[in-house]
Amino acid sequence: MNISENQNTIFPKGERAPGDYFTGTVWIKMLVPNDLTLNCQIANVVFEPGARNSWHTHPGGQILIVTDGAGYYQEKGKPIQLLHKGDVVNIPPGVEHWHGASHVSGFTHIAVNPNTQKGMVLWLERVTDEEYNSFK
Amino acid sequence: MNISENQNTIFPKGERAPGDYFTGTVWIKMLVPNDLTLNCQIANVVFEPGARNSWHTHPGGQILIVTDGAGYYQEKGKPIQLLHKGDVVNIPPGVEHWHGASHVSGFTHIAVNPNTQKGMVLWLERVTDEEYNSFK
Repeated sequence: MNISENQNTIFPKGERAPGDYFTGTVWIKMLVPNDLTLNCQIANVVFEPGARNSWHTHPGGQILIVTDGAGYYQEKGKPIQLLHKGDVVNIPPGVEHWHGASHVSGFTHIAVNPNTQKGMVLWLERVTDEEYNSFK
Repeated sequence: MNISENQNTIFPKGERAPGDYFTGTVWIKMLVPNDLTLNCQIANVVFEPGARNSWHTHPGGQILIVTDGAGYYQEKGKPIQLLHKGDVVNIPPGVEHWHGASHVSGFTHIAVNPNTQKGMVLWLERVTDEEYNSFK
């Protein structure tokens, strides 16, 4: 074992996230596809430094479980919050938000989308560099 | 950093799990308490070697995300399955099952309980040593 490796890698990186809804390099590994029994979609998401998703909402809400690195979370109209490994974010239904890596660190989270019978995600505008750089 | 430490510890161990529903030493850290908005309870569970929960069902189903170690999962009437870091188990509503560490390794998983508006858990009988030792 090479101890310079990232010891917290739990899942394979998966597929490149679609550029339409992400800025920078993001990898998505689907862990639980949505179905009509569990009503819950779960994915592991790896953001390279500087990468983020676009503003969006979830009709059924979302939970982020940070498993590695450092990243940002912002709700519309509020300051950016810094997140680290072990942090958990509960996002109520309909709250406009984005998440991604910090400027200097990669960022990995598990994203849990419950209540998918209400819908999965509504994508909105991109997070601009000005918005992303507003972190203090 | 001491490289002999477990590098995959993401969350604090939390509280000892109640002996009524667990055999051996188990630690539970609540990550997302149930509420009426997300309808989803999430906990991190650490089983010491040989430890397991009792047979039980979830009215809304459950998803297990294995983050460290090696453990067992069994559905009633089926053989025990061996689980490792990175494995994900989807448990449909009402399916009787138990999970826990292997004989020789600790085991850590995130447990996601969706659809909690249908109920959380129904505890049943203990997993006997004979059942636990049936792993081949």
